[in-house]
Amino acid sequence: MSATYPIDHTHDPAATSWVSSANQPGSPFPLQNLPFGRFRLAGSGGECHNGEWRNGDWHIGVAIGDQVLCLRTAGLVDHADMHRLMAQAPTARQALRHALFDGLKAGSAKQAAWAAALVPQADVEMGLPCPVGDYTDFYTSIHHATTVGRQFRPEQPLLPNYVWVPIGYHGRASSVIPSGMPVRRPKGQTRPAAGSEQPNFGPSRRLDHELELALFIGQGNALGEPIGIDQAEAHLFGVALFNDWSARDIQGWEYQPLGPFLAKNFASSVAPWMVTMEALAPFRQPFVRDAALPAPLPYLSSPDTLAHGVINIELEVWLQTAQMREAGHPGDRISQSNYADAFWTAAQLVTHHTVNGCNLQPGDLLGTGTLSGPMPEQAASMLELSNGGQAPITLSTGEQRSFLEDGDSVILKGWCNRAGAARIGLGECRATVLPARA
Amino acid sequence: MSATYPIDHTHDPAATSWVSSANQPGSPFPLQNLPFGRFRLAGSGGECHNGEWRNGDWHIGVAIGDQVLCLRTAGLVDHADMHRLMAQAPTARQALRHALFDGLKAGSAKQAAWAAALVPQADVEMGLPCPVGDYTDFYTSIHHATTVGRQFRPEQPLLPNYVWVPIGYHGRASSVIPSGMPVRRPKGQTRPAAGSEQPNFGPSRRLDHELELALFIGQGNALGEPIGIDQAEAHLFGVALFNDWSARDIQGWEYQPLGPFLAKNFASSVAPWMVTMEALAPFRQPFVRDAALPAPLPYLSSPDTLAHGVINIELEVWLQTAQMREAGHPGDRISQSNYADAFWTAAQLVTHHTVNGCNLQPGDLLGTGTLSGPMPEQAASMLELSNGGQAPITLSTGEQRSFLEDGDSVILKGWCNRAGAARIGLGECRATVLPARA
Repeated sequence: MSATYPIDHTHDPAATSWVSSANQPGSPFPLQNLPFGRFRLAGSGGECHNGEWRNGDWHIGVAIGDQVLCLRTAGLVDHADMHRLMAQAPTARQALRHALFDGLKAGSAKQAAWAAALVPQADVEMGLPCPVGDYTDFYTSIHHATTVGRQFRPEQPLLPNYVWVPIGYHGRASSVIPSGMPVRRPKGQTRPAAGSEQPNFGPSRRLDHELELALFIGQGNALGEPIGIDQAEAHLFGVALFNDWSARDIQGWEYQPLGPFLAKNFASSVAPWMVTMEALAPFRQPFVRDAALPAPLPYLSSPDTLAHGVINIELEVWLQTAQMREAGHPGDRISQSNYADAFWTAAQLVTHHTVNGCNLQPGDLLGTGTLSGPMPEQAASMLELSNGGQAPITLSTGEQRSFLEDGDSVILKGWCNRAGAARIGLGECRATVLPARA
Repeated sequence: MSATYPIDHTHDPAATSWVSSANQPGSPFPLQNLPFGRFRLAGSGGECHNGEWRNGDWHIGVAIGDQVLCLRTAGLVDHADMHRLMAQAPTARQALRHALFDGLKAGSAKQAAWAAALVPQADVEMGLPCPVGDYTDFYTSIHHATTVGRQFRPEQPLLPNYVWVPIGYHGRASSVIPSGMPVRRPKGQTRPAAGSEQPNFGPSRRLDHELELALFIGQGNALGEPIGIDQAEAHLFGVALFNDWSARDIQGWEYQPLGPFLAKNFASSVAPWMVTMEALAPFRQPFVRDAALPAPLPYLSSPDTLAHGVINIELEVWLQTAQMREAGHPGDRISQSNYADAFWTAAQLVTHHTVNGCNLQPGDLLGTGTLSGPMPEQAASMLELSNGGQAPITLSTGEQRSFLEDGDSVILKGWCNRAGAARIGLGECRATVLPARA
């Protein structure tokens, strides 16, 4: 919990819903979760455009068990504009959460009316949770930064600015795509072979996933008006699973001096459901920085924010090869980590991003960066798992992987789990690698 | 000219308009130009949001002399959606240009009807030329890259990838603002003083301009579908003056390893008028790469594109200090350069950007990067003009500048000039530096 997002009756672990599937142990979407997403009836389709479909209307929905509650049909909103919903102040969002919780709770008088607002998740297509205006990617795992830095710069794995600056850079918004959409292997230039001056060109041979979380901005700020650290939490709407696909060989050749570009902007997959800051309240814990490190600068420091700065979210990466898929095998879990190991809090990212006056807008996506933990099995990319391709991992089928191969599916999963709280899930972010275009 | 953008009767230098101000020598907007922008009546305002105003309607206009022609009032479009206009195929855009040219030409039967569609430029407020979905900044001046690289990395000013890769990175779309909007000096972290470990924090002391051109995308491409080099020109809509403000001290501390972030995303100013690829046809010339350098890879090579690859645009930076402004002094011209000196063509930028399948969308902005020429007086940023702050420039008032000071206005200007063609202008991109917030 934090001052901005208190724990209240909507977090009561004993509460149950009249939507019976929400009460099944193991459901990611019990009554205490209530994540937001955008859905439409499957097959009402159209042309993809920035993860939107030009035809076919998107509706705002909330996941409950194996169903979606349509907010407009339920009379809770009179529009389908997710940005408008997200831009509300936390108090208004809490009121909406309370209305949802009370209406979906077992015994609610709303049951008769709202039953008509439910659609089975199996019958809908999910879009991006919201249109993304700007996408910024951070680098908040010191473990990822150190391991990757060691591969790129053995003499200085962690640069001196890392413990002071929440390092971030701008990503591509147009290629943020919904979970389920396949990802085509990119082509590009890669470093020349030894003795040659001319770079190679062709399909990436070091295609990788990055397990991240997408932090979605709710209320924005005006250009020129920084968001102070004590106000930062109020500008966050929620969190979704996020896979920032990367082509390591393209990255290694292009990234100096201005950072990654084509190595990243061919696709970034986001899960359909935004779990709100309100729902995450029971999973907050103090942020404690290693005492051997200097304290952050004052603009990034706040006792209140640090007291609840960490969000404990268990994360997993699963890899399902084509061979596994054909055999009905769900895939292997290839890493496990936790957002609690991030070096910078979500509030610090918001405040740092705006300290120069940069304006954030509703629906902007802040990627956490690859969320690797301190242990080798917590490595959240193939680059780390295979030590830069030098030590392939062996899967349960006997197949080996240094990087991703055509036909591989990567599935991200996430859960919040704490004694005394209802377990809530983030759902899945899933995509399959297609071969490069001929 | 190029195969995509032929020279035709709309480039006839002898043609005149019934809008008499368009025929004045020195007007940037003669009949042969016809640039597009978005305007509304001054004072019909509202809240700024990504350079948009939430209230107050924007209209699509074309500059002619000192007037704006409203395209809807003139019956040329039935909407106010600039993206929709830009996304048309070049043939449709050429048809619109022909209709505009023929209707505005002296003696046209349209004069009576269209006179009612004119508004004096002095009476309108200009917005962003179009909403910007994604903004990419390139680095196409080898002179800028070498000079700046020498300051950051004396041992290796130009990295080995430069002659192979059109280096680019993603910028911030939300803070792309219209010309005329002031720019607040950003605060941020800067490198620790010698002997200290802790970075400094405060207003930037090395605030800079960057003279660039914004290349606007017309037709987009689907995700996963690269744009081949021979098709690239058809995806460009036009060009506008662009100032990518930069805080060099913030940049120097934050930019490793993932590139510039807060040093750039506090503001980027764009001029109101997009000069179309059609209008630029007479100012094309062959691109010739230094024979000592290797040829570009095949995906970036095309005889047709290279034959007309260069766009000759004369560019200027003017600096007007507060003292000058008070004295009615228009400012000093502090540099002059030409887009013809860029190392990569516009077509190469489009093709490189999409070679991995990245999708471009109508209205996306591709910055050329700082367009410094080979001579010292062609340096397109203060960083270069003052040799990293070590050699302040002296202005005509006796004032000195290493970097920009509060109250300074930076004015970018641009012209196309060639014997046998009508001289056309890009107008101005102007903004004044406000002091940092207390």
